[in-house]
Amino acid sequence: MIMALTLYDLAGADANRRFSPYCWRIRLAIAHKELPVETIPWRFTDKEVIAFSRQGRVPVLVDAGEVLAGSWTIANHLEQSYRDSRSLFGGPVGVALVRFVESWTDAILLPSLVPLILVDVFERLHEKDRAYFRSSRERLLGTTLEAACADRDKKVINFRHSIEPLRATFKIESFLGGEAPNYADYIVFGGFMWARSTSPFKLLENDDPVALWRDRLLDRFEFARMAPGYDT
Amino acid sequence: MIMALTLYDLAGADANRRFSPYCWRIRLAIAHKELPVETIPWRFTDKEVIAFSRQGRVPVLVDAGEVLAGSWTIANHLEQSYRDSRSLFGGPVGVALVRFVESWTDAILLPSLVPLILVDVFERLHEKDRAYFRSSRERLLGTTLEAACADRDKKVINFRHSIEPLRATFKIESFLGGEAPNYADYIVFGGFMWARSTSPFKLLENDDPVALWRDRLLDRFEFARMAPGYDT
Repeated sequence: MIMALTLYDLAGADANRRFSPYCWRIRLAIAHKELPVETIPWRFTDKEVIAFSRQGRVPVLVDAGEVLAGSWTIANHLEQSYRDSRSLFGGPVGVALVRFVESWTDAILLPSLVPLILVDVFERLHEKDRAYFRSSRERLLGTTLEAACADRDKKVINFRHSIEPLRATFKIESFLGGEAPNYADYIVFGGFMWARSTSPFKLLENDDPVALWRDRLLDRFEFARMAPGYDT
Repeated sequence: MIMALTLYDLAGADANRRFSPYCWRIRLAIAHKELPVETIPWRFTDKEVIAFSRQGRVPVLVDAGEVLAGSWTIANHLEQSYRDSRSLFGGPVGVALVRFVESWTDAILLPSLVPLILVDVFERLHEKDRAYFRSSRERLLGTTLEAACADRDKKVINFRHSIEPLRATFKIESFLGGEAPNYADYIVFGGFMWARSTSPFKLLENDDPVALWRDRLLDRFEFARMAPGYDT
């Protein structure tokens, strides 16, 4: 019997609204491995709740007493611990390529989403997280959340251009993993779930190959489609 | 016995100066597969020489009478035809991820190199190619080659930022293929060989993880290091 995993998962004012792009990677990875999981809603300021992980951010996974923090570490733990179910990386050769997709997502995709959704993320937060979120993000941005998210109708053009490498790929391939999704898909999809779970702003045209790929993933993972969010 | 492949390969005024980023992908792929190859120097205006391929660009590969055009088509042909040697893609799961790397290279890397090297590419061309190259490229750019390549010292900052996904990957991984290079590496490396073979402009700081990866590939493929070019 497999004991359920425990995942500390970033939540909004509504405890069912889960919006961390990094936690979504892991929720999808756990579903890919067909493992049972209990998710615990966690807010930015609940530092003491995860103090046992010796750091202050989620995702944190507890697996039979073993504590793991950070999405890449957790994904590799799942891959190595649960070898009977489908590979997350497509074997050792895939790991570095998936790492490139992660690096692209963290360096390009997520920063391109910030000026489109961050003010909406703020609106979904629990009251107790708001002052922390505003001051920490505004320090990084060098401006207010509202100013950073001004002119979204113009900035979305730039965003759509920045994801051209995805678009060109999905004109031909169903998933980054090929015929079925793998962890590379979940990394990118996590960014879109960050947006979906917090923001009514429309990121993609309906016929964009990236939107069609996103839809294929929502079809496969019903819990993602049903999660609180905006079907834009 | 394996018959030598024949590759039509873009050349400059010096017939030994081979500079197409797409042809470099294939030269590396052929070397990866440890196949003998005869390369035929070809210039942009030699359209009739490759008319048998029913299109006007290189790389064109002739393999035992079979004619293949386009780097992706050729790479897949090599993978399927020469299964005894190491895989270029790391199996079916790797293909879509390599396609993402190709899409990123074509959409981001190569366009970011254009304003840094294109005027130097022009200087290396055979006399008979110059008018064609200048007029076709200036039409695409909407300006002169010289104007497009002005202020390189400023533009290189933007270039170095644009390759952050590579840098983050090579801080941890030796190659996109993992412990050994695969076709994903050759796609990206082709862009750097385009620059190396034509331009003395320094793209990377010596201690940049991307420069160290480039050096690991030059160590493995002596013919690339020895090819006419600039060791910047």
